[in-house]
Amino acid sequence: MKAKNHQAAVFALGGLGEVGKNMYGVQFQDEIIIIDAGIKFPEDELLGIDYVIPDYTYLVKNQDKIKGLFITHGHEDHIGGVPYLLREINIPIYGGKLALALIRNKLEEHGLLRGAQLREIHEDEIVKFQKTSVSFFKTTHSIPDSYGVVVKTPAGNIVHTGDFKFDFTPVGDPANLTKMAKIGEDGVLCLLSDSTNAEVPGFTMSERKVGESIDQIFRSVEGRIIFATFASNIYRLQQAVESAVKYRRKIAVFGRSMESAINIGLELGYIKAPKSTFIDASQLNKLPADQVAILCTGSQGEPMAALSRIAHGTHRQIQIIPGDTVVFSSSPIPGNTLSVSKIINQLFRAGAEVIHGSLNDIHTSGHGGQEEQKLMLRLIKPKYFMPIHGEFRMQKMHGKLAEECGVASENIFLMDNGDVLALDKSEGSLAGKVPSGSVYVDGNGIGDIGNIVLRDRRILSEEGLVVVVVSLNMKEFKVAAGPDIISRGFVYMRESGDLINEAQAKLTTHLEGLMEKKTSQWSEIKTEITDMLGPFLYEKTKRKPMILPIIMEI
Amino acid sequence: MKAKNHQAAVFALGGLGEVGKNMYGVQFQDEIIIIDAGIKFPEDELLGIDYVIPDYTYLVKNQDKIKGLFITHGHEDHIGGVPYLLREINIPIYGGKLALALIRNKLEEHGLLRGAQLREIHEDEIVKFQKTSVSFFKTTHSIPDSYGVVVKTPAGNIVHTGDFKFDFTPVGDPANLTKMAKIGEDGVLCLLSDSTNAEVPGFTMSERKVGESIDQIFRSVEGRIIFATFASNIYRLQQAVESAVKYRRKIAVFGRSMESAINIGLELGYIKAPKSTFIDASQLNKLPADQVAILCTGSQGEPMAALSRIAHGTHRQIQIIPGDTVVFSSSPIPGNTLSVSKIINQLFRAGAEVIHGSLNDIHTSGHGGQEEQKLMLRLIKPKYFMPIHGEFRMQKMHGKLAEECGVASENIFLMDNGDVLALDKSEGSLAGKVPSGSVYVDGNGIGDIGNIVLRDRRILSEEGLVVVVVSLNMKEFKVAAGPDIISRGFVYMRESGDLINEAQAKLTTHLEGLMEKKTSQWSEIKTEITDMLGPFLYEKTKRKPMILPIIMEI
Repeated sequence: MKAKNHQAAVFALGGLGEVGKNMYGVQFQDEIIIIDAGIKFPEDELLGIDYVIPDYTYLVKNQDKIKGLFITHGHEDHIGGVPYLLREINIPIYGGKLALALIRNKLEEHGLLRGAQLREIHEDEIVKFQKTSVSFFKTTHSIPDSYGVVVKTPAGNIVHTGDFKFDFTPVGDPANLTKMAKIGEDGVLCLLSDSTNAEVPGFTMSERKVGESIDQIFRSVEGRIIFATFASNIYRLQQAVESAVKYRRKIAVFGRSMESAINIGLELGYIKAPKSTFIDASQLNKLPADQVAILCTGSQGEPMAALSRIAHGTHRQIQIIPGDTVVFSSSPIPGNTLSVSKIINQLFRAGAEVIHGSLNDIHTSGHGGQEEQKLMLRLIKPKYFMPIHGEFRMQKMHGKLAEECGVASENIFLMDNGDVLALDKSEGSLAGKVPSGSVYVDGNGIGDIGNIVLRDRRILSEEGLVVVVVSLNMKEFKVAAGPDIISRGFVYMRESGDLINEAQAKLTTHLEGLMEKKTSQWSEIKTEITDMLGPFLYEKTKRKPMILPIIMEI
Repeated sequence: MKAKNHQAAVFALGGLGEVGKNMYGVQFQDEIIIIDAGIKFPEDELLGIDYVIPDYTYLVKNQDKIKGLFITHGHEDHIGGVPYLLREINIPIYGGKLALALIRNKLEEHGLLRGAQLREIHEDEIVKFQKTSVSFFKTTHSIPDSYGVVVKTPAGNIVHTGDFKFDFTPVGDPANLTKMAKIGEDGVLCLLSDSTNAEVPGFTMSERKVGESIDQIFRSVEGRIIFATFASNIYRLQQAVESAVKYRRKIAVFGRSMESAINIGLELGYIKAPKSTFIDASQLNKLPADQVAILCTGSQGEPMAALSRIAHGTHRQIQIIPGDTVVFSSSPIPGNTLSVSKIINQLFRAGAEVIHGSLNDIHTSGHGGQEEQKLMLRLIKPKYFMPIHGEFRMQKMHGKLAEECGVASENIFLMDNGDVLALDKSEGSLAGKVPSGSVYVDGNGIGDIGNIVLRDRRILSEEGLVVVVVSLNMKEFKVAAGPDIISRGFVYMRESGDLINEAQAKLTTHLEGLMEKKTSQWSEIKTEITDMLGPFLYEKTKRKPMILPIIMEI
């Protein structure tokens, strides 16, 4: 970090050039404001990894400077890292009502709620520190209580949009255009704005329109309705619940995160319904089909979620019956297209009707398209611009949009995680780096899975494993037992007796030769085993399993 | 197979409820006509599998009845299985000029060309057998020489469309509408028609329109053009080559399948260009950027293909320089979205412009949309209808379209691989099954990888492996050496010494206890090891690695 003393420094620990683990920092001298602490769900090549979180090194080292963590909204890619961060540094957490409720649940699960400093924010509030202050403006997004954040520093004001779209007919509160205009008028040094839909022309469809489609489905469908969506999309749940109430259907809820979302939504008043609306799964079969709606998780094809189990007939309480209509109120994120498609096929086979896809206006994005990104730029009128959230291609396109909206091209910064942008009114430039990177969470382990373990998992997954174990008597230089060959994930051993026998015979001869030569270095013996067996197996099978030689000395 | 003696039987060994490994059969009494012999590329959960082919059991058992394999066109999902099939049964193969050229290459690679019976077909030809005959009609698709197939049987005529769209301004020959109308007029018992785009409304854009976009790019771009597409799309290559010639660019070709496609295209006359158009990679740097075009593989994000290596700077002969324009003349198939996106990001980072996506009219599908599927139905006017190619949801939608076009709903058969449809003029019904299923090809092995091996690979890939090896002296009931613990893909062992030591100590005590009790059953000892170690490791790490106990007796 090489920002000058009078400059504001802006950096990301996650969320640039990637979708997920959003985490940004604004530093002025000895005051650091953190915005969001997200996780990312691993891509396919991160075999077995549960989550990815940012590297918190810089924050741990500078914890005495951190004034607080400010949460823009309650999605996992913005709050999922909170427990992992709090395990390292206990800092105050500021957030809207819903985000805090979700964080509270999370901290409770991790046994970290005691001692956590959770502070609810409101739009008209200013959180003041010695040199900096933080204020908020309401945005519209696919979850209630979404805020943009303004960090006031002596070097100028830094605005972070969070995730946003401009929904003029939202289900909840509208975005505070007036306040955004005022912020812009007061002067903005730098805008960090959501790039997710920078490649999507136009304006994102209103959530209200989705409500109309939902109403239309609830009005016309005669059988049961099974409605799958993101549990976090409380607006969507609210609309489905409203339609159910309107058309006199009782609702059963399946999936842990869906149950929890409905409970939080009812508790905080986002979802309104008579208590009798919700029924237990056991009551489902007592009602006629046209009086039943089911809300469930699994709209992304998650194999363990309720919908997948319903589709495959392995759900404990409910199976598909002809006449059922399944609604996917969602669109598959790119990595999930195939698994969603599989479930749709399975549902059709089981006799259900399936309503899915954007053609049916049954889903809309939570992120604004190009015109909305431009609207934000025109309202905030920043001197410097830093596209955040999303892949590099989206940041790049968003940079172009900023240029079209009057930001000087040399004032647009396409940065990577860890890059530091040092800013004042007369100058903006990259100024060094802070440590950044991906930390893998697998089970209880945080950061203990590295590239070597992942490389091994990849080889094992594609080619399998051959273990060669041999006991050597190193006093008499004799093979005491073995060599035995055991394989997993390589060939089915019962049907490959000849191959294994031949390999074993070759190894035996070879090892006896090594013993005669009084070879005593284990590493040498292991290398000999690998060098002999690898090419032999490749020649016979055109596969290259991992070979694991184990020597026991007796 | 329970078709009656006077009925025609129609079945699929692959290609129903799935994308790929297309293979269909029409049988009348003792005559079997096979249509296509494709492979399928494995989905993610088939770890390490190279290809998937159909189960050929029925064909091997009935090989004396098989009159021939008829190839509709030269795509891998229609011809890729030919070498595997020919290894089992040597039957005559009928196909168009290009398909046969591609099959010839394939058989040569597999050492199977000698003795293969390859017979080129032409549209006006009828291949006659004792009871059945086969004729053809030209279709339009994304590869030249695409045909539909008519199998005439005493029970009625069966029509198989192959893959098709109706491109009225194609780059090659137009579809033979006249002949299709004639076939329909003569009476069609059953139509098997391509369902791939049954969920896509409207008409597929003409290949000619893509040519205009390509021309526009070659006219306006000033730097080098790197053009990536499917090697098999000879029309696309032809259009790119034409534009290169027109705007005086020399062409370098990268990627083995692309080189081979260009060679075959030039040889068969589909691609026309002066010889001097093609240059060697070594000459690339001698030409100004605006006189260079590069044709390469990798438009699907394949990690080993030319484009991926160019993007990542690991290509031996070419790297991205600012000013380069990379054209993705393709759209990612669902499973490849993420890898394509990664390459696009990488190219942008390296300083290239990237043109991709349907917005730029730079790609069009090879399959017809709903209106084209209806046009086929109206031309062929079948009594029975069997939607083929594509997932179940597409077959189902195609069935609806057929109903809209006048096929009686009870005459529409949504079948699975292996189902047999028995047909005559008065009756059509499912009539038993033939063996069908997926056979996995991995390296040299065909069908030797089963569910057990795949299950092991999956566990290994997500949780890794812990090997426990111990030498036991079963005469004196003593632990002679070990237990040693070795892990791969589980934890990084150098940093997990404590965990491993603790596990080892527990195991040692336990094994000594077992020896004192004179436990002599290996299976019991192995179970004891697994039952002790599994819960211990789970408690410590929340991971469940595969545990592989190995006992050596000395």
